[in-house]
Amino acid sequence: MADRQALILEAAVRVIARSGIRGLRVEDLAAEAGVSTALIYYHFKDRAGLVQRTLAFINDRAVGYTEEALQGAQDARDALLRLLLSELQETGAVRENSVAWGELRASAVFDDSLRGNLVGSTRDWVRDTAELVADAQAAGLADLRVEPLDVAERLTALVEGLSGRWLSGSLDVERARELLAGAVEAELGPRR
Amino acid sequence: MADRQALILEAAVRVIARSGIRGLRVEDLAAEAGVSTALIYYHFKDRAGLVQRTLAFINDRAVGYTEEALQGAQDARDALLRLLLSELQETGAVRENSVAWGELRASAVFDDSLRGNLVGSTRDWVRDTAELVADAQAAGLADLRVEPLDVAERLTALVEGLSGRWLSGSLDVERARELLAGAVEAELGPRR
Repeated sequence: MADRQALILEAAVRVIARSGIRGLRVEDLAAEAGVSTALIYYHFKDRAGLVQRTLAFINDRAVGYTEEALQGAQDARDALLRLLLSELQETGAVRENSVAWGELRASAVFDDSLRGNLVGSTRDWVRDTAELVADAQAAGLADLRVEPLDVAERLTALVEGLSGRWLSGSLDVERARELLAGAVEAELGPRR
Repeated sequence: MADRQALILEAAVRVIARSGIRGLRVEDLAAEAGVSTALIYYHFKDRAGLVQRTLAFINDRAVGYTEEALQGAQDARDALLRLLLSELQETGAVRENSVAWGELRASAVFDDSLRGNLVGSTRDWVRDTAELVADAQAAGLADLRVEPLDVAERLTALVEGLSGRWLSGSLDVERARELLAGAVEAELGPRR
């Protein structure tokens, strides 16, 4: 990606994390990124294009920190836990991503044009999670009776639910992580 | 509550469910409710007062349909399941409430003034849910090793996560209900 585009997208995530996707105006973004509005329109066509590319950018960045979290995983079950916990961390990038992702989810309730990307990203995340559940089963580290896709849909939806409570001040991040780890235990059963 | 106030609050939930809390303008609400803006300011003081009262109104209405859901419950475990499932139903009132609740959660990320009520409402919901988990344990219908408060925080956060996916088009309501019922099974273990 051209440096200029990356710079604009990083600024877009910051603006969304600060004031929400519905508060994202191209003028404010131009000021935040230190570029002209013309340059933003040149690269992203319109506001809808900008929002869609920002979502893709958030996903790419999440791949970065989830891969980091997976390094050093002991086994498939540990990898699953690390993958999920990586979304609940008190770091600037994770918090920004979580706020922006939550905003996209919340805005898609009212704006159909955001749904396509969101559905696709959610499906990918659920599929990756389900693969780790199946790997854990194959390695004898999880109950064989559980359905990987069901478990994956629940655990990722729980991450979104806990994330919303964390970011809105109902839950601190340590408690959210503890609850999530407990859900993995309840869903996978004891290590066999 | 005076009829006029109830009428305004019902209209406020409709406006929020249609265009979000950040799209709620007193002028639009006045048009929706068929009253003057002056009357709205008279009853609710300002926009913040209106939003807070709308949240309380949503909670009161939720008590209505959750109590309805609890009627006919076979036992504490069944009551727990019904309480949770009552938040995922394709009816006008439940959808409106879910959208408005999700919006309040999403807006509280950016607006501290919304957090107090939200934290309190969440705490009450978790506590009521935890009581049903403890009742199920006492009746021999749930694993005694599980911690009611942990289970309640997870199941209610999962409802919020599933609800966000349902309302944003990532999940149909039947699948969301099936996943939620599965989580109750995983969390409580087999009926003893």
